[in-house]
Amino acid sequence: MNPFILDPILRRALEEDIGTGDVTTLATIEPGTQASAELVAKDNFVLAGINVAQRVFQLLSAETAFEGLLADGQAVKRGDVLAWIKGDAAVLLQGERVALNILQRMCGVATLTASFVREVADTRAVIVDTRKTTPGLRVLEKYAVRMGGGGNHRMALYDAVLIKENHVAAAGGITAAVSRARQHVPHTQKIEVEVRNQKEVAEALAAGADILLLDNMSLAELSAAVALVGDRAVTEASGGVNLETVREIAETGVGLISVGALTHSYRAVDISMLFT
Amino acid sequence: MNPFILDPILRRALEEDIGTGDVTTLATIEPGTQASAELVAKDNFVLAGINVAQRVFQLLSAETAFEGLLADGQAVKRGDVLAWIKGDAAVLLQGERVALNILQRMCGVATLTASFVREVADTRAVIVDTRKTTPGLRVLEKYAVRMGGGGNHRMALYDAVLIKENHVAAAGGITAAVSRARQHVPHTQKIEVEVRNQKEVAEALAAGADILLLDNMSLAELSAAVALVGDRAVTEASGGVNLETVREIAETGVGLISVGALTHSYRAVDISMLFT
Amino acid sequence: MNPFILDPILRRALEEDIGTGDVTTLATIEPGTQASAELVAKDNFVLAGINVAQRVFQLLSAETAFEGLLADGQAVKRGDVLAWIKGDAAVLLQGERVALNILQRMCGVATLTASFVREVADTRAVIVDTRKTTPGLRVLEKYAVRMGGGGNHRMALYDAVLIKENHVAAAGGITAAVSRARQHVPHTQKIEVEVRNQKEVAEALAAGADILLLDNMSLAELSAAVALVGDRAVTEASGGVNLETVREIAETGVGLISVGALTHSYRAVDISMLFT
Amino acid sequence: MNPFILDPILRRALEEDIGTGDVTTLATIEPGTQASAELVAKDNFVLAGINVAQRVFQLLSAETAFEGLLADGQAVKRGDVLAWIKGDAAVLLQGERVALNILQRMCGVATLTASFVREVADTRAVIVDTRKTTPGLRVLEKYAVRMGGGGNHRMALYDAVLIKENHVAAAGGITAAVSRARQHVPHTQKIEVEVRNQKEVAEALAAGADILLLDNMSLAELSAAVALVGDRAVTEASGGVNLETVREIAETGVGLISVGALTHSYRAVDISMLFT
Amino acid sequence: MNPFILDPILRRALEEDIGTGDVTTLATIEPGTQASAELVAKDNFVLAGINVAQRVFQLLSAETAFEGLLADGQAVKRGDVLAWIKGDAAVLLQGERVALNILQRMCGVATLTASFVREVADTRAVIVDTRKTTPGLRVLEKYAVRMGGGGNHRMALYDAVLIKENHVAAAGGITAAVSRARQHVPHTQKIEVEVRNQKEVAEALAAGADILLLDNMSLAELSAAVALVGDRAVTEASGGVNLETVREIAETGVGLISVGALTHSYRAVDISMLFT
Amino acid sequence: MNPFILDPILRRALEEDIGTGDVTTLATIEPGTQASAELVAKDNFVLAGINVAQRVFQLLSAETAFEGLLADGQAVKRGDVLAWIKGDAAVLLQGERVALNILQRMCGVATLTASFVREVADTRAVIVDTRKTTPGLRVLEKYAVRMGGGGNHRMALYDAVLIKENHVAAAGGITAAVSRARQHVPHTQKIEVEVRNQKEVAEALAAGADILLLDNMSLAELSAAVALVGDRAVTEASGGVNLETVREIAETGVGLISVGALTHSYRAVDISMLFT
Repeated sequence: MNPFILDPILRRALEEDIGTGDVTTLATIEPGTQASAELVAKDNFVLAGINVAQRVFQLLSAETAFEGLLADGQAVKRGDVLAWIKGDAAVLLQGERVALNILQRMCGVATLTASFVREVADTRAVIVDTRKTTPGLRVLEKYAVRMGGGGNHRMALYDAVLIKENHVAAAGGITAAVSRARQHVPHTQKIEVEVRNQKEVAEALAAGADILLLDNMSLAELSAAVALVGDRAVTEASGGVNLETVREIAETGVGLISVGALTHSYRAVDISMLFT
Repeated sequence: MNPFILDPILRRALEEDIGTGDVTTLATIEPGTQASAELVAKDNFVLAGINVAQRVFQLLSAETAFEGLLADGQAVKRGDVLAWIKGDAAVLLQGERVALNILQRMCGVATLTASFVREVADTRAVIVDTRKTTPGLRVLEKYAVRMGGGGNHRMALYDAVLIKENHVAAAGGITAAVSRARQHVPHTQKIEVEVRNQKEVAEALAAGADILLLDNMSLAELSAAVALVGDRAVTEASGGVNLETVREIAETGVGLISVGALTHSYRAVDISMLFT
Repeated sequence: MNPFILDPILRRALEEDIGTGDVTTLATIEPGTQASAELVAKDNFVLAGINVAQRVFQLLSAETAFEGLLADGQAVKRGDVLAWIKGDAAVLLQGERVALNILQRMCGVATLTASFVREVADTRAVIVDTRKTTPGLRVLEKYAVRMGGGGNHRMALYDAVLIKENHVAAAGGITAAVSRARQHVPHTQKIEVEVRNQKEVAEALAAGADILLLDNMSLAELSAAVALVGDRAVTEASGGVNLETVREIAETGVGLISVGALTHSYRAVDISMLFT
Repeated sequence: MNPFILDPILRRALEEDIGTGDVTTLATIEPGTQASAELVAKDNFVLAGINVAQRVFQLLSAETAFEGLLADGQAVKRGDVLAWIKGDAAVLLQGERVALNILQRMCGVATLTASFVREVADTRAVIVDTRKTTPGLRVLEKYAVRMGGGGNHRMALYDAVLIKENHVAAAGGITAAVSRARQHVPHTQKIEVEVRNQKEVAEALAAGADILLLDNMSLAELSAAVALVGDRAVTEASGGVNLETVREIAETGVGLISVGALTHSYRAVDISMLFT
Repeated sequence: MNPFILDPILRRALEEDIGTGDVTTLATIEPGTQASAELVAKDNFVLAGINVAQRVFQLLSAETAFEGLLADGQAVKRGDVLAWIKGDAAVLLQGERVALNILQRMCGVATLTASFVREVADTRAVIVDTRKTTPGLRVLEKYAVRMGGGGNHRMALYDAVLIKENHVAAAGGITAAVSRARQHVPHTQKIEVEVRNQKEVAEALAAGADILLLDNMSLAELSAAVALVGDRAVTEASGGVNLETVREIAETGVGLISVGALTHSYRAVDISMLFT
Repeated sequence: MNPFILDPILRRALEEDIGTGDVTTLATIEPGTQASAELVAKDNFVLAGINVAQRVFQLLSAETAFEGLLADGQAVKRGDVLAWIKGDAAVLLQGERVALNILQRMCGVATLTASFVREVADTRAVIVDTRKTTPGLRVLEKYAVRMGGGGNHRMALYDAVLIKENHVAAAGGITAAVSRARQHVPHTQKIEVEVRNQKEVAEALAAGADILLLDNMSLAELSAAVALVGDRAVTEASGGVNLETVREIAETGVGLISVGALTHSYRAVDISMLFT
């Protein structure tokens, strides 16, 4: 994760928490006191964001030593030590909460993603995220999805076309909407169209859509749509996806399954920073 | 919620999602097209953040009309209409995801808080939050906790003293740490000390601590500590708090119960924006 | 052009020029003095950015009246009045240079683009831009390219894959590079590969590249590559493109011709703001 | 060029191009891969901005080695190597376009300036720039003008008085305008007045103007004005200046010739970054 | 003083003074010229901010050597050398004014505070500051108050409750106002109430106020109020406090005396930077 | 005072004071409560900044009504009402301290300046400020100096040349330093040279300096220098200037007297905001 992209996010988080100063530490810790600590897993989870945690401490002081012991994407067991940290005691105390707040959330996303990915093992379906991310943390959460074995959908409104019902209505039909999009956007961006039934599937295919978003279809409708499309476009299922339903959906042969919960309803994993 | 505090958060969220432009809308929606929509609850939940959602659309265009139909803190039922929105179609489409991403999370926090509050009904315990908030959204999540019937712990490292084990060790004991803090910080800030046993409770009381954080104590220890403290300080329980345990903890007579999950492990509620 | 995207660019430009104050205007113009002006073309050109000019004045004072008389994309003749402006004299004087500096450059881009587009009339080639844009003004220059009849290439490094020689070398071949990219990036982004000869064309096609960048090929090589590719991918020519060569290049049947000069070597057109 | 002034400009340019990440490099280049490259001239030109290019790479990683081989202001020949760069391959690839976009433009300004300066050799005329600079890049372009042998006009609206027709009209005459300016502005700033004929020249001189802007005068009028002014003020010619006319204008004996084209209509020079 | 908190303040100050460049230094000092200087006291005063001065030079160049010879809080005599500085001559010249502007003000605050503290020696009164600080420099001025031996009042509107007359009126009485505040704010914040007579003192005590602000009371009223309050709350005197009156006020037994002048009417002390 | 320049200063001041919210007002004032207040002078002083105060309240809510009753530059008497304010009670309470903190300081500067100006009445000397301004507030303090009847020295390091002893030493003499400056800086900027004796006066004049800074000279030396210079340059006295010495200095015939105290050692005037 590029510090250039990361730093503004982390600086804001540190400013939010430190503000005009950590009064407890300023009052009780002699300046210059050194300390060591380790990050310890209190849950089983998939790791994501170890370098982000490192960067938090190094933004507070470039002299903080941080050694990550496990890599993003690895499965972590309760009790595993994730990293050793050594440096100014005030820096460790001031960075602790922000580092954990971010790391625990990123691991939470990766872990939930991995659960979905496990469910669809041996199908061709790829689990992908959505734009239902935490405001301000999208780039971190989308990275965590990849660490959990998922794929990324478009980053935002600017980097791909996704034509939904309202756009179709405004443009006067799927064909017109796709055609206008093809005129307007870079040739490097694909065009996805949300479709609700086989008629719309056919129309979107004819219009040259690259990806079809099969929204809230029954399993039967999904299977029919996937069959109709064949290799002519990528298919994506969305709506009503959870750990109970995702396997059946994957078994329709759909190419992608997008899951909002990956980034809006994960649980933060439990990680402690223990002073040693 | 003061726009002055809110706007930087919302602008960043909008920039994250819109970036160099919503290519789909630019391609398919004729400039000047008007639209109406409503925000509809797809779950039962406690409302928090309706004015935040309003502000998202009005930052995109001051001319967007937004009428909130329910107030923060109210219980919402699946199917309830939360607000009417009317304005430029592009503004509605570009603001939709950001508004929902924030509103769904704030309602999630309020709803989870309300569950904890319900559990401790008729005890003297107040459910409070922690610093385990989403980086960048703390002020919104802490507001949502209040809307769910909870109370707020300190905002951040700058506005209250919370002396933990490492501070005690560095200062040379609880008494020294409290004394140094009293010297250093504004007289308007209270001093809280984390204690692990009755001996530390006694020492912190003698040192003049305003609040005792009874961390990870058994129910028996908690009861004993609460009895020992009496009216001489505020007592706060933390550690191992969940919907199964919170009632028992409250029944020890403790004054405050702090719950990290309120802000780190809530589920976003389901809200749709339907064009009308 | 969305004010939300535009305003930071314009604010910076105004701060650069006004700084601690327009000393001449402060000294000589009585506060509250009203004035009217018009923007007049002193060249023939293609208009792009009239709303950007409007926004400059309205950022200085929301009460400035600005009526655009021609629309972006239209051909303008020397002497044409582009807009009427009315408001505080100090606002008009302080916004004049920034508004013209931007408008004259955007029209310059649109006009140069239109020249290239004219040259390739009746071929299938689309003239597209590159990332060789003016730092800080990319979104404006890419908009101007569209107003001149061109198309946009990817916006930046984040919204599409363009595998060049160094990426191929590092990944261990075209096939590996395409495969790794397909794993890594959103399914909504296309993958383009720079190729230098027919062997690479064949390898990139086999690897599943969506777009082939035929870099610095002779006309004969281009023709052969276009024939080889057929409908299996989009073809793009680059290198050595100018107003003398572009027609021949287009006649090879290539799909896109990217031209760095559109945004790095245009001439600002001449526009005056005349007080009336 | 002071990094303190430079860095905000370069950071914005890098953010514009890198955004949420260089997807191609992230997918294809193994983290930690080292690379070397050189910047090579593909044109003859005057160098300006070599340290700016260096700073781009060092902002991405302080560990990038960059050795400039030629100095700003030197004449460069096609094929000359301008600098050696060594560091993280991802850093080189991510900084390449931004570094070149800026360096090519700065060299373009210096080169065009040098052409004008050559034309007026052996006259007393100094070629100076205007405020017709690229929004956001003024400090770089004005530096490049100096590297091309030109001089700088005022930086912006805040650092010198330039009384134009509208200010004169509002103040009630040249005399009143100069007098009000003298009262208002720091005694360290000179006062320039735009004049259109000999009567105005005489009035501005009498009012104590430090500099006379002789705008759009014929050669005969210019010569007369220069003679009339003598040593009592600095004279500056503007309007209708190009490489064909500048020599004749200089031969009137005017002190300064301001040329908008230096910064609004230069061509970016051609420079490549070659991996070695 | 944490660089993380300090740097934005110092960067703004440097930008304000350096802007587009120190033209004098750029013109006259050869790049790379080294220089040494010392900061010398030209007054007697209390030192505050030596590390802030250091940071100014190190923000301009991390390679500047700066050795502070005296510590914040120490009494300085005219002629004392405060620090040695060594580095790039341009950095020393460009940082000089900003470093002195801040250091002289911080020492001014500390020195004035120490005068008040001296006056109340051997009483129990603590001299505290107010929110009447210089906009943008509050955190520095409040630090300087501590270095002068004073204490800090609340940092700002967000970190403590101070109920004044208008809040009382709006809430419907002191009792209601205190009760609403207790509901609303974190339990870690104390509640202070402004009272004007003994009746209000009694009411505020009964309402559970933690601190009573005895505003503009006569000495007799103050004494009576202090007696009435006893140990039940902290007492704070304000209004009409100056070096002539502060002793008498302290002798009433009041706990805190807040003095706006500490931060709004201090004199900058005289410090020179001498090149050696 | 242009809101465009003013707003960033005021926003920072408001953020510093309001932060995450005015907890007292949020707890005690019903949203929507309206209030009226007036700004009342508690001292005699010269007014400066009434529009700045207005802007503070209008940034918090554009709907706040603010009517200034006196104009900047006017003499104010204790008891005068400066302005009426009407609007949301929370806005008035949240803006009060910031508005007063700025207004009281600006009036302090104007008032102290007016004292100096009065002392030099009927001499040709103009009282001017220095760069010894409050970091972050320079543009406001320099405006206040003008409102007190003084003049402004250069704004900062970027808008005029002031060659001091170190620059002279580095350049190899006054003549060389002036010559290099003339080459380097815009022709619109004047060149000032600090001189310490008649020999340096003569050298600076011969070198073509526009302004001579006669630093720390005795009255006799000043008179001699002024006589030597005559009309060939502007003369400026500095060093040891206070209300006791300024008249004698002015009577030497010097053109400008620069006074650091105007902006570094003024007293804030007393102004109250009274709710009505």
